[in-house]
Amino acid sequence: MKISELGEFGLIERIASFLPAARSNVVVGIGDDVAVLQVRHGNYLLATCDIQVENVHFLAGKITPYQLGRKIVAINVSDIAAMGGSPDWALVSLALPKHQQVDFVDDLYRGMQEQIDAAGAAIVGGNISEVPKDVVVDFFLLGNVAPQHLIRRNGAKQGDLIMVTGTLGDSRAGLELVRVQHLLVSDNARRQASQRHLTPRPRLLEGQVLGRCGNVHAMADVSDGLLGDLGHICGASGVGAEIWAEDIPVGNACLEVAAASGKDGQEWAMTGGEDYELLFAAAPHAVQEIAAMLLNETGTSSRVIGRVVSAKDGIRVLLADGRDATRNFQRSGWDHFTANARDAQDLLTQNEP
Amino acid sequence: MKISELGEFGLIERIASFLPAARSNVVVGIGDDVAVLQVRHGNYLLATCDIQVENVHFLAGKITPYQLGRKIVAINVSDIAAMGGSPDWALVSLALPKHQQVDFVDDLYRGMQEQIDAAGAAIVGGNISEVPKDVVVDFFLLGNVAPQHLIRRNGAKQGDLIMVTGTLGDSRAGLELVRVQHLLVSDNARRQASQRHLTPRPRLLEGQVLGRCGNVHAMADVSDGLLGDLGHICGASGVGAEIWAEDIPVGNACLEVAAASGKDGQEWAMTGGEDYELLFAAAPHAVQEIAAMLLNETGTSSRVIGRVVSAKDGIRVLLADGRDATRNFQRSGWDHFTANARDAQDLLTQNEP
Repeated sequence: MKISELGEFGLIERIASFLPAARSNVVVGIGDDVAVLQVRHGNYLLATCDIQVENVHFLAGKITPYQLGRKIVAINVSDIAAMGGSPDWALVSLALPKHQQVDFVDDLYRGMQEQIDAAGAAIVGGNISEVPKDVVVDFFLLGNVAPQHLIRRNGAKQGDLIMVTGTLGDSRAGLELVRVQHLLVSDNARRQASQRHLTPRPRLLEGQVLGRCGNVHAMADVSDGLLGDLGHICGASGVGAEIWAEDIPVGNACLEVAAASGKDGQEWAMTGGEDYELLFAAAPHAVQEIAAMLLNETGTSSRVIGRVVSAKDGIRVLLADGRDATRNFQRSGWDHFTANARDAQDLLTQNEP
Repeated sequence: MKISELGEFGLIERIASFLPAARSNVVVGIGDDVAVLQVRHGNYLLATCDIQVENVHFLAGKITPYQLGRKIVAINVSDIAAMGGSPDWALVSLALPKHQQVDFVDDLYRGMQEQIDAAGAAIVGGNISEVPKDVVVDFFLLGNVAPQHLIRRNGAKQGDLIMVTGTLGDSRAGLELVRVQHLLVSDNARRQASQRHLTPRPRLLEGQVLGRCGNVHAMADVSDGLLGDLGHICGASGVGAEIWAEDIPVGNACLEVAAASGKDGQEWAMTGGEDYELLFAAAPHAVQEIAAMLLNETGTSSRVIGRVVSAKDGIRVLLADGRDATRNFQRSGWDHFTANARDAQDLLTQNEP
């Protein structure tokens, strides 16, 4: 069935019917023009949005609607996580061509619902609209954080150590598998890379642990690529950074897929983006305790990958012998519009009809 | 200059530079992935979103970016107004084709800034992304309302009188002027109709006055057309309604433009949509006082146009002599996707390249 047979309000009713009943902190939920919500007293309100546009961020044949639903929630939850916060409520703005199948909407919402539920939050409203051609899913997420647990980008201090959770580059490897159909890699690497790319897992508990620990001075999630997001932290904090190339936790799937396609796995880990790991600057005396706490409370590994230096030294990538390898990683992270946007852009442009 | 020459982050910096400095209730504003906000204690949080898609909601040559900016803010403020609330913060999600001129973004933000400032709120974040073809402006608005002043859709009671602010149909007349180039109408009518269509003025103060008065049981803004939005109120409240055709406040510009184009101005007022007037059900004993209060405190007229009846009687339009004229107004309000969507859809489809 096409959505044109159901109509806008029929579609809204259908969506409302398979979302769970609203929680106690939702006064008015789906079906009204405005959601009415009860905020936790004393905490800051967090608000973020992130979009997925067909043929820019995703290709219809390469990601299922269910995966797309999970992914758009995950990338927004990741932003709240990087503040040390908790997600509460979401609004979904959907723009669909008339010919879109209702199944697409069902599966998209199934994915969104599963991922938002895992984050302890609820979809409470949104908007459905027509678009001439490419599907647009715009996701707006509200959350909260206790003021004393908020971690901003702008607190990195000279002498801080730079840490990152998990592994990097697997998502970029997953993009390569989308791009090149017949790469010879193991099933394990294919599964791992595809999973990281299509259904990333936001580091929500990890962000909350880091928010509570008191020794993390600045944080961001790795969405634009390690060096790109490090640039955001350094810019906001007025500092520079050196990254120790050999200490970057490059994912196994990343290494395998990169090798199979004649690319550099370390470069993917540095600049690939969409890793949704947490990148943060911490007081040097606390880094061991932080790593232990993350492992014990969330099962997630983390490691020191560099240190914060003076702004005048900029951002440099150093090898173990002290040589400067920065120019090997000149490709910046994701930047819409510019000519040097990363591979994903080129890929999608090539694939457009 | 094209936005591709500036890049995503260059564009964000540019936007941040011409928005005013954040207020005291904004902890982290534009430039970060997440806005951090201080909520007023005890009040409900309101959250809404509404989108404008090129070639669906607007045609690039028929509305200036400045007007588009004002309009998208106004339609969101109108939703908050219809709850009796006050807007506080906005996030703007912008999806633009690579070739878009930077001037477009400048003018769009100038319009948004002017209208959000008039509403006492601030733009505190958002997202910029690429889109293959049609511009998408998606606007998320947060606000607050004291619990005792909140007006929902679902409180209309049998016996309530139905009231509406201002006049109806002028926006639909403005759409006709967009559609048909050379209609012979007075400059006054052209100006009035175009203004109502391109830069509607949300009834924010009016909504707040109605929220405080205590005798308004249900409210909505007229965005989908009088009969469409009345349908939302009746559906949510489990009631029916009769509308007294001769009492509908049809705008003068609507009457003039309709006459010039051989259309029925009253039908436009009933079903045209995008009027952004407030439609509400009030206790009968209070309607005179409400009309006086609105006029005194906001300068806005209002009038009784019908009454709430039993659900089994549905929604009917009655003439002064008691005859049922409902079937003259069968065209429903705006519904994306369905075949019987209102004229605007047909217009825009025709104009697509």
